[in-house]
Amino acid sequence: MTSLKSFLPILGWAPAYTKTEAQSDLVAAVIVTIMLVPQSLAYAMLAGLPPQVGLYASILPLIAYAIFGTSRALAVGPVAVVSLMTAAAVGQVAAPGSAEYLTAAITLAFLSGLVLVAMSVLRLGFMANFLSHPVISGFITASGILIATSQLKHVLGIKADGDTLPHLLTGIFNGIGGINPYTVVIGVAATAFLFWTRKQLKPLLLARGLRPRVADLIAKAGPVAAIVLSILAVVGFGLVDKGVKIVGEIPAGLPPFALPSFDLGLWQKLLLPAVLISLVGFVESVSVAQTLAAKRRQRIVPNQELTALGASNVASALSGGYPVTGGFARSVVNFDAGAETPLAGAFTAAGILAATVFLTPLFRFLPQAVLAATIIVAVLSLVDIAAIRRTWAYSKADFAAMAVTILTVLLVGVEAGITAGVSLSLLLFLWRTSRPHMAIVGQVPGTEHFRNVDRHDVITDPAILSIRVDESLYFANARALEDAIYDRIADNSALKNVILMCPAVNAIDASALESLEAIAHRLGSAGIGFHLSEVKGPVMDALKRSDFMDHFKGHIFLSQFEAVSTLSKETQPIATSPAPSSPVRDATSPGQLSLVPTTEGRSVV
Amino acid sequence: MTSLKSFLPILGWAPAYTKTEAQSDLVAAVIVTIMLVPQSLAYAMLAGLPPQVGLYASILPLIAYAIFGTSRALAVGPVAVVSLMTAAAVGQVAAPGSAEYLTAAITLAFLSGLVLVAMSVLRLGFMANFLSHPVISGFITASGILIATSQLKHVLGIKADGDTLPHLLTGIFNGIGGINPYTVVIGVAATAFLFWTRKQLKPLLLARGLRPRVADLIAKAGPVAAIVLSILAVVGFGLVDKGVKIVGEIPAGLPPFALPSFDLGLWQKLLLPAVLISLVGFVESVSVAQTLAAKRRQRIVPNQELTALGASNVASALSGGYPVTGGFARSVVNFDAGAETPLAGAFTAAGILAATVFLTPLFRFLPQAVLAATIIVAVLSLVDIAAIRRTWAYSKADFAAMAVTILTVLLVGVEAGITAGVSLSLLLFLWRTSRPHMAIVGQVPGTEHFRNVDRHDVITDPAILSIRVDESLYFANARALEDAIYDRIADNSALKNVILMCPAVNAIDASALESLEAIAHRLGSAGIGFHLSEVKGPVMDALKRSDFMDHFKGHIFLSQFEAVSTLSKETQPIATSPAPSSPVRDATSPGQLSLVPTTEGRSVV
Repeated sequence: MTSLKSFLPILGWAPAYTKTEAQSDLVAAVIVTIMLVPQSLAYAMLAGLPPQVGLYASILPLIAYAIFGTSRALAVGPVAVVSLMTAAAVGQVAAPGSAEYLTAAITLAFLSGLVLVAMSVLRLGFMANFLSHPVISGFITASGILIATSQLKHVLGIKADGDTLPHLLTGIFNGIGGINPYTVVIGVAATAFLFWTRKQLKPLLLARGLRPRVADLIAKAGPVAAIVLSILAVVGFGLVDKGVKIVGEIPAGLPPFALPSFDLGLWQKLLLPAVLISLVGFVESVSVAQTLAAKRRQRIVPNQELTALGASNVASALSGGYPVTGGFARSVVNFDAGAETPLAGAFTAAGILAATVFLTPLFRFLPQAVLAATIIVAVLSLVDIAAIRRTWAYSKADFAAMAVTILTVLLVGVEAGITAGVSLSLLLFLWRTSRPHMAIVGQVPGTEHFRNVDRHDVITDPAILSIRVDESLYFANARALEDAIYDRIADNSALKNVILMCPAVNAIDASALESLEAIAHRLGSAGIGFHLSEVKGPVMDALKRSDFMDHFKGHIFLSQFEAVSTLSKETQPIATSPAPSSPVRDATSPGQLSLVPTTEGRSVV
Repeated sequence: MTSLKSFLPILGWAPAYTKTEAQSDLVAAVIVTIMLVPQSLAYAMLAGLPPQVGLYASILPLIAYAIFGTSRALAVGPVAVVSLMTAAAVGQVAAPGSAEYLTAAITLAFLSGLVLVAMSVLRLGFMANFLSHPVISGFITASGILIATSQLKHVLGIKADGDTLPHLLTGIFNGIGGINPYTVVIGVAATAFLFWTRKQLKPLLLARGLRPRVADLIAKAGPVAAIVLSILAVVGFGLVDKGVKIVGEIPAGLPPFALPSFDLGLWQKLLLPAVLISLVGFVESVSVAQTLAAKRRQRIVPNQELTALGASNVASALSGGYPVTGGFARSVVNFDAGAETPLAGAFTAAGILAATVFLTPLFRFLPQAVLAATIIVAVLSLVDIAAIRRTWAYSKADFAAMAVTILTVLLVGVEAGITAGVSLSLLLFLWRTSRPHMAIVGQVPGTEHFRNVDRHDVITDPAILSIRVDESLYFANARALEDAIYDRIADNSALKNVILMCPAVNAIDASALESLEAIAHRLGSAGIGFHLSEVKGPVMDALKRSDFMDHFKGHIFLSQFEAVSTLSKETQPIATSPAPSSPVRDATSPGQLSLVPTTEGRSVV
């Protein structure tokens, strides 16, 4: 039963569903429905699909998520970035407007569903972790810019194609002569109005004394007002005859039952896009769900979310929709409006179904420019310039991955962009860990602490070299460790012992183990002892599993202090330099050591 | 001058060259020359090239290395694994025995030289670190098996082709009917004799009272004896007429001046093999050089080694040779024979030049079966079964990378094998670091230490959750950290504070930083405090560079003990469970805790 509940989370909350929860869920559903209907039409247009496809993608997927999802407030459906990725992927295999284009979009949703379910079954959810925040942030910012630019042609009433920034801008520049003035007036007015409702209406209403929640709702209804007003304007002034492009007739009725194409050649072409869409959608969805769940101390199960999103995409495909994921804006609205259970999503689905069956005739005269305006205003909020600045200040490596992602998305395309970003961030991570921070350490006078000789006034013994390595040891940095040690023993005839201090070594792989053996062997053949100190428990367990301990002639000390005190004592008799009365030689007695107020041994470095 | 010396290491030792050094170098050169002449012929045959090409590749490259190399004892020239890789790469673009085949091999050496020099200029030597020890070890073992099998046909005197193990075995099986009995007798006798000289002759000579060095030299001369005896047998018994294949006429004379092909299509096909050959050759060469340098406390400069190997390969190409690298066996012989400076290499070059000009007629009647026997005996020593067993015992992840490398080399090919091994080992590393070890810690009674609650009897406070993370925080594990913390705060209403203990966190990238901010934000909105403890200096510096500290409302404690004592005091008044007299509750008074006799600061470790 428990495992069934974890596979069908609906069994967890549905039996105990209360009337109060039902009321909250219903209110939330009404509000989200009003927001979603125009948004669904707009995102379908962005994906190059007929408007009703956006509505279809907002019905069954919500039901599927309600059954399988672990988030109480997540609202799935078409979102801007995934719509753009769909347009990019499907545009490569079919001509926009053709029946093949629609079939390819449905197939993409189906494939994406399969990929998500497969990731869930194979527990591959961790793959999403390889999308670093700077790469995602850069990807979303660049996508926002690309989407906003792609919608400009609708606002200006011109024809322009292209899927990279240079192409889009060239297209707009070339088409600028064919601007339709009526469209421009409507488009610019709608954009300005939507920006105003988004940024300034709420504070204004609050200043007038409205309650925050009411003010928020009125501000959120901005797109609905823009749509109603623009439809009235088109009909009232007969703008269709003056060249204003409208949405046109939307077939009313239930979503159709659809089947994806089973053409293997098409599957092959769409597989990589489906994987990327799945990963991006999953990352966006899970981070929204986690944010909302944390606010109520609920939890979501990432692996079950893969199943739920997979089911949602399969449901979308089977009902004639295109790829969907959990959207940020709609989920937050759902949460704020009081959704208590996933049933709010099911109620929303019913609302959109009603709209699909009864209200589509009303949208016939809706100008495309207004839909474009809602997209532009929505996606420009995705553009996060501050994140670019923050990343630059914090880490140049992260910034490089982000910059490459942004530039590649804008200049080459969305898929190339995310692939380049992920590859570069992995390479940079490997490069960083392949050059671990290592410090020669010495004893802080009067304590048992050992610190970097370059940062502190510490005591060292010319016969002992203490190196602290601040990284797990694995194949990519094993040689760096060897190099560092060999460099420091070359031409250093006073040296009798090397101690590797390992408090930050969380793992040692087989390569690093061989390097340690090689170091021990080479130091041994040069007459130098090699020892370890402060080896962690799990690392020690692993060393014991190998035959390292059989050959290792050095000591493994619990603490660096113990190591240095023991070895100073040992080497004392065979020390050859300098005078036996020098402070460093006296270091054999820990008590005396702390008396020496000097940086004596820094000559070792 | 220093920078010129580091570019031309010859300027460092040549001006101070002494007569004693010259004598040592000369003796070493004579011994290495005797060893190298038959080996060069054999490896050229393995690479599918005319025998004299192996000699050409053993002359100018030695001079180039003497000028640019930093190792005093490394001997460059054709080696088994690189010869096999050459055969695999060149075999894909030209038919063995054709003029195009030779040109492609020369071009491969030239390209490999360019790749090595480019790696040196761009400081890309660290790329070699991505070849983990298990991958290299598996690659060499599998190459050894593949090479030995490929030589069986020469020993049996049959025709058989193929470059994968199944193909080779099928070929031998099909050709078994055409065995030449004379060839088999010579081949098997030579193999047995060479094994015997390698394994048993030296102990025998030592038992007879010979000095170790002399015994060693006699044992090393085994191949020369086999060659002389087999030539005499071929000539004496007229075996050529009985179907024994001989080396045939080797053109005598100076190495020719050769130019690589500048056909860009060919370059494109050979680029990846050239990169792989460069990496494998560099890794083998540097590890030999480092082993030998450490014995005399000298040092080698890996980046300069790239230049030197690059120059050697270009020199090989321009004198009609094929790809070369520093060989293990010959370098050890050179070192043991007393080589003091790279001039020993130059003397060896002169020796091989003399052999090329004057001695080639002597090799005319050398049976191919004997050359094959020298290869088989040499490469079987590369097969390291113990390493496979050791790796299995130590780490299943490393073993997986090794096994995939071995199987892919044997079943698909050398290039596919090394590519698969490197890719898998990188993925496994990323996977491991994406699932960091995290422990809930509690206070060891009577100390300031905090340990894993699952391993130790420790005191915890239900209002405080202390998590220690044992890995640097970066994009691939940032979400795992979030998940772990969210999981533990869900349904835990007693919790007031979470402390993340960071003594093993060596770096925090931008993604992990955002995760920390997200955790702080989400815990904050759930009324839980979030704090850090034991943050390392460099990590703290990075945090200060960001705006993290501006938003962070929690504390950053120097020690976990300080964190728990401070927070217990804070939360005491609002604590709700259990009885106020429980030991855990008593932990709120730091006064009581610090009475405990302890090594104060060591809790920091």
